[in-house]
Amino acid sequence: MKAQAVHAQETGGPADWHLAITEELESVEKLLREMAGSEVQAVLEISKHLLSAGGKRLRPALVILSSQAVLGTVPRQRLSSIATTMELIHMASLMHDDVIDLSDSRRGRVTANAFWGNKVSVLSGDCMLAKAFSLLAGDADGPVMRVISDMTIRMSESEVLQALCERDVEQWRNHYWHIIRDKTAGFLSACCRCGAMLAGASPAVERALADYGIHLGMAFQLTDDLLDIVGDPATTGKPVGSDLREGKVTLPVLLALDRMPEAERASTCTMIETDELSPEEIETLCEEVRATGALDTARDHASAYAERAVAALAKLPPSPARGSLASLASQLIYRVS
Amino acid sequence: MKAQAVHAQETGGPADWHLAITEELESVEKLLREMAGSEVQAVLEISKHLLSAGGKRLRPALVILSSQAVLGTVPRQRLSSIATTMELIHMASLMHDDVIDLSDSRRGRVTANAFWGNKVSVLSGDCMLAKAFSLLAGDADGPVMRVISDMTIRMSESEVLQALCERDVEQWRNHYWHIIRDKTAGFLSACCRCGAMLAGASPAVERALADYGIHLGMAFQLTDDLLDIVGDPATTGKPVGSDLREGKVTLPVLLALDRMPEAERASTCTMIETDELSPEEIETLCEEVRATGALDTARDHASAYAERAVAALAKLPPSPARGSLASLASQLIYRVS
Repeated sequence: MKAQAVHAQETGGPADWHLAITEELESVEKLLREMAGSEVQAVLEISKHLLSAGGKRLRPALVILSSQAVLGTVPRQRLSSIATTMELIHMASLMHDDVIDLSDSRRGRVTANAFWGNKVSVLSGDCMLAKAFSLLAGDADGPVMRVISDMTIRMSESEVLQALCERDVEQWRNHYWHIIRDKTAGFLSACCRCGAMLAGASPAVERALADYGIHLGMAFQLTDDLLDIVGDPATTGKPVGSDLREGKVTLPVLLALDRMPEAERASTCTMIETDELSPEEIETLCEEVRATGALDTARDHASAYAERAVAALAKLPPSPARGSLASLASQLIYRVS
Repeated sequence: MKAQAVHAQETGGPADWHLAITEELESVEKLLREMAGSEVQAVLEISKHLLSAGGKRLRPALVILSSQAVLGTVPRQRLSSIATTMELIHMASLMHDDVIDLSDSRRGRVTANAFWGNKVSVLSGDCMLAKAFSLLAGDADGPVMRVISDMTIRMSESEVLQALCERDVEQWRNHYWHIIRDKTAGFLSACCRCGAMLAGASPAVERALADYGIHLGMAFQLTDDLLDIVGDPATTGKPVGSDLREGKVTLPVLLALDRMPEAERASTCTMIETDELSPEEIETLCEEVRATGALDTARDHASAYAERAVAALAKLPPSPARGSLASLASQLIYRVS
């Protein structure tokens, strides 16, 4: 089967990948609400606050769709447990991403954790992470646990790396691909792999779904990084150039710098590495990036990864779930938020 | 057997509980060094820094001694894995305890995480926690994992509660016992319980060791709280009154407040709840606490818990390990650091 042959229509997958797994996602939502319970009022409130913010539930969806694509059967409870574990780890990492350094307060970034404070947010994140591993303990499948804990190690290592690269163009140039691979792609891949493992996939099929997840994750993060420069704040929910303001130098910016005459490159780097950029300066930087045409190249990278993700699915038998996974890959890179 | 009959000499346990398990603790140390490894230089350095700071390795010791006290046999590797898991969780929690809130910077508490910054410290702590669960995944024993993850949930919940009680005498009065039970006693109890489970203890013996751990943990934390008021900074390594400076209102202080005439109590509360106490004010507060005689009562509580810990051991057969556990309980409450 040619890789290109796999797409949503052909295999009968719905254009909207959520539709076919509504029921499974509802089980996840129910379990998330259960896991949010706590004797400690603040922990309960923070968890509820995070839950009510919703989200794509992309990670649980990948666990579920991958298990279905293997055509094996998985007891609903196991599937919900592992899918929910993944979302809890994701939520905990979001809470810890929001940790504010003292230096940040000078850059006006105190709003994120301002309400509860750093400490309460971090410790609540720990609680969420512990709940994730408690769910895993209930499942007690060594190999699945290993995939999830190893992914979590690499994800936190890459987050440390990202924090250390902050506001340093050269460091970002050295580590950008490593960071997005371990932070996002490795996570999505672990979701797909666990779904496959739960459904008793053969090693080859497990590998194919893990590959799909890696490529999908790269496409997803590259698109996220693009949207930060070109997205509409009304749909993305964050101001243009948020990454730059937080000291993150993503692919579009790195590519744009390569295309600038040396003098402009030097002054742009200096600006990027400045601690307190005004909204006007951020807008100027974004405009400079857009002017180089680097965004098209970055978009090409994202599309290439999405195509590789779809190609990896060719190793699976045709099924509605495979169609949904293919459809998900296309939709993620054409999304606007 | 009467509870009082159990003590170090009688059962042949060494006065220094470390001596009999030197070899096992060396395996733990070796595994801790292995787990500190990371491709990310900063993660490696932070982990090594924490490791080199040493520590009592009380949690691994409890896992090891409890398994030995059951008289079962446990493969050395399993024992090291679980003992090391406990120390990694402890180290991660220490890193997250040091998280600095913006408000703290005004109180001159920026030194703890100042070198790496909050974010890098928090994310490195996550990495350590993930490594702990990765070790557990290698062991893949559902019930042991469940005990450890449930303990971790309760510990982080109580840490949230503690953060919320900060600088609020009434809140501390409501939650002090809950906090020390879940933060410290529950952790030590889980260590003992896991050691027992690994060695195939009967439910009654597992329960006895879990009880020993709870009482030991209460005695341990009560002594810690005492040492904060009366300890010699040269041996404790921290200035007298650190808890008060951090907004923690511990048992000696709560008891002292009860003994003060109403006017004095009100003014002392106001002082405790003040944001920025000078070293002189801290010293005055400690002196006021000492003057009430509350320290003796707090010490009585600690001793009572230590006695209960030793009493719980009566359900175990005599052995050198049981002697070491008894000796450990006495030593922990007579310690000076």
